[in-house]
Amino acid sequence: MTIHKVIFDTDPGVDDAMALLFLHHAPEIELVGITTTFGNGTIAQTTFNALYLVERFGMNVPVAQGAGKPLVGEPMDPPDFVHGVNALGDISLPGELTTAADPRPAHRFIIDTVRAAPHEITLVAVGRMTNLALALREDPEIAGLVKQVIIMGGAFGIAGVQGNVTPAAEANIIGDPEAADEICAAAWPITFVGLDVTQKTHMPTDYLSELADLGGESGRFIWDVSRFYEAFHQAGGVPSIYVHDSSAVAYLLRPDLFETRTGAIRVSTTGITRGMTIQKPDTLAFPPGAWDDRPSHRACVSVDAAGLRELYRATILTGRILA
Amino acid sequence: MTIHKVIFDTDPGVDDAMALLFLHHAPEIELVGITTTFGNGTIAQTTFNALYLVERFGMNVPVAQGAGKPLVGEPMDPPDFVHGVNALGDISLPGELTTAADPRPAHRFIIDTVRAAPHEITLVAVGRMTNLALALREDPEIAGLVKQVIIMGGAFGIAGVQGNVTPAAEANIIGDPEAADEICAAAWPITFVGLDVTQKTHMPTDYLSELADLGGESGRFIWDVSRFYEAFHQAGGVPSIYVHDSSAVAYLLRPDLFETRTGAIRVSTTGITRGMTIQKPDTLAFPPGAWDDRPSHRACVSVDAAGLRELYRATILTGRILA
Repeated sequence: MTIHKVIFDTDPGVDDAMALLFLHHAPEIELVGITTTFGNGTIAQTTFNALYLVERFGMNVPVAQGAGKPLVGEPMDPPDFVHGVNALGDISLPGELTTAADPRPAHRFIIDTVRAAPHEITLVAVGRMTNLALALREDPEIAGLVKQVIIMGGAFGIAGVQGNVTPAAEANIIGDPEAADEICAAAWPITFVGLDVTQKTHMPTDYLSELADLGGESGRFIWDVSRFYEAFHQAGGVPSIYVHDSSAVAYLLRPDLFETRTGAIRVSTTGITRGMTIQKPDTLAFPPGAWDDRPSHRACVSVDAAGLRELYRATILTGRILA
Repeated sequence: MTIHKVIFDTDPGVDDAMALLFLHHAPEIELVGITTTFGNGTIAQTTFNALYLVERFGMNVPVAQGAGKPLVGEPMDPPDFVHGVNALGDISLPGELTTAADPRPAHRFIIDTVRAAPHEITLVAVGRMTNLALALREDPEIAGLVKQVIIMGGAFGIAGVQGNVTPAAEANIIGDPEAADEICAAAWPITFVGLDVTQKTHMPTDYLSELADLGGESGRFIWDVSRFYEAFHQAGGVPSIYVHDSSAVAYLLRPDLFETRTGAIRVSTTGITRGMTIQKPDTLAFPPGAWDDRPSHRACVSVDAAGLRELYRATILTGRILA
């Protein structure tokens, strides 16, 4: 069994928490660190939430606090109508925690960890790309030392899927478009797991209910944390929750569940398309333009949604038993 | 039989010429005028070509010369690698013509014609949108007097289709993005027939060969004019020609061959996405943004390609016999 050493860059966040439990229970995963970013909550809230999850589920893993705002400008308001005011679906949270964050900022934690285990670390990034961009700015050579980067973010206009914050832009990318464009310029192997596939995979209520019944503490937590999130989806006419961040974990575990397309990726930073991801497929030719001299990255174009659901279910119910 | 009175706004152009013959032979069409724009050639060339086609095929229809450059800046170089240096596939053209253009500029011709037959005129626009934008600027009320506007242009990110000049932008839109965005702000009923459908429909060599054998003067011309265009497609790995401009005519004749999606449409005018069309589907909700307070328009999302090919074939071979 191949063991994947993972840094999980995250802004928990309901689906972030569900993805973290996915990593926690997957036997193939060695979680070596959690880095936090602003997004689904303020950086103070998401760091608190990450420490809470580590403490509650007995994860023996450092949490390093990351950026509180994008490379340019101020952060957008957290989407409390999606994730709740505390970003964990407004479940009851303790007033204080016994676990403290790593003293290093997230981007320094990433650099140190990658340098200490060259070619071994996979970055699974499911929030704004700010920490990754700051790490690259401080130490560009890590691009050649990271095993792979898997990003939940973007929308590539495949099968009619568009953005979710604007008709052009997905939340993780519009939250820091400059950072996202910078990391796409680096020659590390990136796979984007965007809305094109994450909105094709749903977890219906009865599926989550089974996890609650059979999945022990983790299953009950997944049920509790997803109630607010499910209500948000249903209020918008989507009968069951999309599987965003856990799809990035699924890609790491089972890339065969996905089809991908390769090509240079740029992120719009201007005008009405700010935050939009656009890939130039390697199979198409264009006159000289803004995608030239950019490395080719992967974007997921389709997913075996039933297979992904089953992988998540099996991992939570019968995967590694911890704590 | 419903008769459609049509102004054809065009930059002939190989596929423009093929679409013009489609209009010419369709019994349901009354072509009331041709307006020219720069694009596939300079405005002098496209106007010459339009007059040549009218003369050669005995069309009794005025040709009004339109804009020679976009609303902002200078025109892009004509794509002579697609349509040939003379924009009609480098077929042999006469040195001079006996037919003269209408004395009015295209946008004034459009206004006069629409005003003279309120609620009766369909604009089929298959070049840059400059003439339509100039007409709207001079007489905004025509938006309420035009029957419908059918545009070949744009790429809406459906089924993985992207731009053809950049990964974001289609030629007719990037040729004058400001004009395209302006006309989408007007409350006339627009249908975009974009690359999402025009690249799904092909005319193979043997199909064109049958037209040459059985389609008389028109069929032979279609064969001759499409040789250069077919070679361009094949050099790019596309085995047979896309059906761009004729798809807009097909939508007018047989809208049942298409599925459409409604929603406000904006055109990016900045950065790497300049010239990109983005629709906000009416079925999706977003926070307040740049698509608000814009009228809903249609974009084609799928096409019955075989049905479209058969419609074109039948119209050329057995449609109205003229001159």
